[in-house]
Amino acid sequence: MSLTRCLLVQTEIKEFIKQCMLAVGTKASHASSLADVLVEGDLRGHYSHGLNRMDLYVKEIQAGICAKEGKPVVEKESVATALVNGNNLLGPVVGNFCMSLALKKAQDVGIGWVVANGSNHYGIAGYYSMQALKKNMIGMCYTNTSPLVVPTRGKECTLGTNPISVAAPAKDGDSFELDMATSAVALGKVELQARNGRSIPEGWGCDANGLPSSDPKAVLSGGGLVPVGGSETTGGYKGYGLALMVEVFCGILAGSHYSKYIRTWRMTNCRANLGQCFVALNPEFFADGFNDRMSDLLSLHRNLEPAGPNMPVMVPGDPERRHNQPCHELNGIPYSLSVVKHMNEVASTLGVTPLLPTNRLIQ
Amino acid sequence: MSLTRCLLVQTEIKEFIKQCMLAVGTKASHASSLADVLVEGDLRGHYSHGLNRMDLYVKEIQAGICAKEGKPVVEKESVATALVNGNNLLGPVVGNFCMSLALKKAQDVGIGWVVANGSNHYGIAGYYSMQALKKNMIGMCYTNTSPLVVPTRGKECTLGTNPISVAAPAKDGDSFELDMATSAVALGKVELQARNGRSIPEGWGCDANGLPSSDPKAVLSGGGLVPVGGSETTGGYKGYGLALMVEVFCGILAGSHYSKYIRTWRMTNCRANLGQCFVALNPEFFADGFNDRMSDLLSLHRNLEPAGPNMPVMVPGDPERRHNQPCHELNGIPYSLSVVKHMNEVASTLGVTPLLPTNRLIQ
Repeated sequence: MSLTRCLLVQTEIKEFIKQCMLAVGTKASHASSLADVLVEGDLRGHYSHGLNRMDLYVKEIQAGICAKEGKPVVEKESVATALVNGNNLLGPVVGNFCMSLALKKAQDVGIGWVVANGSNHYGIAGYYSMQALKKNMIGMCYTNTSPLVVPTRGKECTLGTNPISVAAPAKDGDSFELDMATSAVALGKVELQARNGRSIPEGWGCDANGLPSSDPKAVLSGGGLVPVGGSETTGGYKGYGLALMVEVFCGILAGSHYSKYIRTWRMTNCRANLGQCFVALNPEFFADGFNDRMSDLLSLHRNLEPAGPNMPVMVPGDPERRHNQPCHELNGIPYSLSVVKHMNEVASTLGVTPLLPTNRLIQ
Repeated sequence: MSLTRCLLVQTEIKEFIKQCMLAVGTKASHASSLADVLVEGDLRGHYSHGLNRMDLYVKEIQAGICAKEGKPVVEKESVATALVNGNNLLGPVVGNFCMSLALKKAQDVGIGWVVANGSNHYGIAGYYSMQALKKNMIGMCYTNTSPLVVPTRGKECTLGTNPISVAAPAKDGDSFELDMATSAVALGKVELQARNGRSIPEGWGCDANGLPSSDPKAVLSGGGLVPVGGSETTGGYKGYGLALMVEVFCGILAGSHYSKYIRTWRMTNCRANLGQCFVALNPEFFADGFNDRMSDLLSLHRNLEPAGPNMPVMVPGDPERRHNQPCHELNGIPYSLSVVKHMNEVASTLGVTPLLPTNRLIQ
């Protein structure tokens, strides 16, 4: 890509996001939680779920449709499960609360399955599942979200990109980190192609008649994303089934909004009331040697002979490692300059200083 | 299809399978458990996992690589989890034991997560997850299996078709029944096209060089199935990630064989030692009104306007209902005559009588 990029240091982006959220009245610890997950998204290369979305969170707090303060509340609980009311707090506040509860339960009885209603967008799902890695546990996280995906044979968006995220610890800090939308691709990829006037591969989206389309504009205006698997012939009904499965774990179990009742994407005139699901699973309650087998599973795949040159076989989490390793070397995260400028405009209207630097340009 | 089909009554097929398994020395209750799951597979239209596979189970018992009698043993246990040694018993014996244990735990503490090693092929995964429906619970089931799937960018089969199965109860006996291989299609579909001399759609499999192929013979000899999502561009790495996730829940947690260490498909000279995972989740521990929301989720999708004529939008489980409803009306299951004849030959060599009738031909 020929976009001009600007290098920002993690701590300065976090402080910037925090100050913007404080400026609209968010409680300090909540603002920090949001900043942490957004920067982690960027660090992993998932720019669609990072700083790029800060203005959305600002708007939601300003519009009064997301709570500035308060605490999530446990409404039902067993040694292994909990139902949490997110009290309309910022997604990361609800997510951190629930994941920490799930981990506590998994420490005691091997598993914690926690479901939340009344939640909001929480950034990348992997941020929560990966919290389990520090405790040498498996973490899982699911969320429903605004309808953007058209079910197999349909022509109306009734499901979100409903991600599945599973993290599992291997040896020496290595890990399996699956974090995938159940749509073929994320919305951001289609938006990017539209902005650049390029077409999209068949199998990414459909038009308003439910027909496959390689025109990103048709997908974005009246059409929708398609479930992973693409057409019915190539197994698209499986991706559709997985998106429904996520909805069962989230909206249906939690009693939040679900499916097409969730507000339209980027709408800021009503509460999101999302349903989310957080699971921790403790390998100590199962067969000995979990980490060894995990490491072996990862390395046997990484060491496979690739089908083509310069296309090494990877495991889930490797593409993100390939993004964040250079960030450590650069001591910063490269951002699109236009995103930085846009967020500075948002910050200016809120009276936030200092703004993000726009002069550390890199190739 | 122009194949000649023969109508068999459920009770007679079950008795036939049972007698064949008894003839090779299987304990009666184990033979019955196997017969039940195979016939359920056929009833749901998954013929690749039914009577069609009886000879495989017979061979495994004959070869002494699958145990004729014994009991699964719980090796580790908490109120919410268990690790089970399947003691190399027939898959359905291990599966029924584990699912029943998971359901008991979910009754008490909301969830039961049970993992088994030392297991064998257990028929359709959905048979176990659906056992939860009778208790108005959510059931999940996963298994690893012989390597048939080539990871994204690779050219060697290192993963099984590793199915994901999730069943969730709605109102009035209705339910969500997801039961999907994490490969784009099942092996049986490719075999069928090869047998009929037809090509396969791109996105089903690859050749021995890891390149997409529409030649089913190339896929079956040296190539392999591809993960759901197809190529890397259309999200095949997601299917690959899901297949690995299933392996984490099965072989890696259970300490059984996993990935490419599992014996080659149809090999009968060594034990399978499969890993399997059985989960029950009790909606009573979460938000009230689960069944109502499930029914609404299903019906809102079934009632969507379809993109094309005679292509109604369905939910997971509907294709199976469309197969087994006529079976109830016909009072029997239609089988391919060649499969019936082949199984009769197997039975003859074992001295089993009566054989299956071959004269109830239907269109």
